[in-house]
Amino acid sequence: MAHSRDEFEKRLRRIGEERYHDKHPFHHMLHSGQCTPDQVQAWVLNRFVYQAHIPMKDAALMSRCDDPVLRRIWRSRIEDHDGSEEAPGGIERWLRLATAVGLDRDYVASMQGALPASRFAVEAYVRFVRDRTLLEAIASSLTELFAPKIHSERIEGLLQHYDFADENSLSYFRNRLVEAPKDVAFGLQYVLDHADTREKQDAAAAALTFKTDVLWAQLDALHSAYVEPGRIPPGAWRPGEGMAK
Amino acid sequence: MAHSRDEFEKRLRRIGEERYHDKHPFHHMLHSGQCTPDQVQAWVLNRFVYQAHIPMKDAALMSRCDDPVLRRIWRSRIEDHDGSEEAPGGIERWLRLATAVGLDRDYVASMQGALPASRFAVEAYVRFVRDRTLLEAIASSLTELFAPKIHSERIEGLLQHYDFADENSLSYFRNRLVEAPKDVAFGLQYVLDHADTREKQDAAAAALTFKTDVLWAQLDALHSAYVEPGRIPPGAWRPGEGMAK
Repeated sequence: MAHSRDEFEKRLRRIGEERYHDKHPFHHMLHSGQCTPDQVQAWVLNRFVYQAHIPMKDAALMSRCDDPVLRRIWRSRIEDHDGSEEAPGGIERWLRLATAVGLDRDYVASMQGALPASRFAVEAYVRFVRDRTLLEAIASSLTELFAPKIHSERIEGLLQHYDFADENSLSYFRNRLVEAPKDVAFGLQYVLDHADTREKQDAAAAALTFKTDVLWAQLDALHSAYVEPGRIPPGAWRPGEGMAK
Repeated sequence: MAHSRDEFEKRLRRIGEERYHDKHPFHHMLHSGQCTPDQVQAWVLNRFVYQAHIPMKDAALMSRCDDPVLRRIWRSRIEDHDGSEEAPGGIERWLRLATAVGLDRDYVASMQGALPASRFAVEAYVRFVRDRTLLEAIASSLTELFAPKIHSERIEGLLQHYDFADENSLSYFRNRLVEAPKDVAFGLQYVLDHADTREKQDAAAAALTFKTDVLWAQLDALHSAYVEPGRIPPGAWRPGEGMAK
């Protein structure tokens, strides 16, 4: 039997409580000032792979959507990330963070030193959105329900513990505090409205679970390479490489 | 051996001279006032399928493009077609044309009565852009090189011969006179810059040829169903259906 709307929303929120990557030990290290400068750099350059693919994921979603109104609403996500000629977008803001932590902006943008596992996880996300139903594609974006909390903690934690952190270098997170709630309000509404059978509710919950896996896998890869056991895969960034000139 | 830039551009333009759908007998009928009201309606409702898929095609292209600057430039095409909350886009303008020729706007928007062959051709175009190289995807958009001429002829021909034609109903074409040249200037530049081997030049020329096939196939289907032999496929729109209430 289908969940009530209320039960279903609770089920979705429970996925965040149990599986969102704010529970990952790497984030605890990062936010409490326990990361070395190298580890912060490793995080920034690997997370860039995710940032860089988000607009491609959103375009993939729009390419499957035959409703101009829904496309128009979704378009603002691409604008937020790619920016306009006048205003920088999220990708540019992330590159400012990269410069602030001492990395060369072009090196980071090239994604050369990123961990293969980061790339695989992100590519799985883009493919998921391209191949699954529109409902599942939109449900996979609902990790944004849990993002404002992590972004607030992050701004606070980074400002407190790291010299590179200031309003300029952290402007990505500050902006997401405004953008994510607007996006997710629409996405949540859409999923609650359209998952009108138990089968669709299960598919939407599975999509959100999948997305938490995508985020978690990136931090696992980072932790494995740069924290413990600290085994950097062949070809991946090593501390000291790709520094700002 | 690769063509010179100049030769290559000439080769691309020759494809338009030989194969663009302004050469199709249906367009001659339409522009010279020889279409019956039914035939004009059939054209408007079938061509809507193409209009409705163009932003999906452009989003598919953006979903494969990892350059934020290129994505930003391409984004304006989606804006042109989907419009914004304040300003109508190309799809809305086409629906105004549908109303002006006496069709019900929701019926046209549903694409219910469209010829299967129109749909197949348009879907082939979206898939082509999704699956081929970025160069081929962009090259396939270069039919816009030949569009301003057909749009001017169309505005003139329709205004002269049909009662429904006025600045409001034809605003789609008037707008494309401004939008298409801006888009195609970028697309042509990109293709001339990136097709730097004979193999890539051949692929780009084949992509443009493919696109002329997509356009031509739509008019052939229209002609076959509504002009000669006038055999309307099962389930497709029949004159008198889907009229404005």
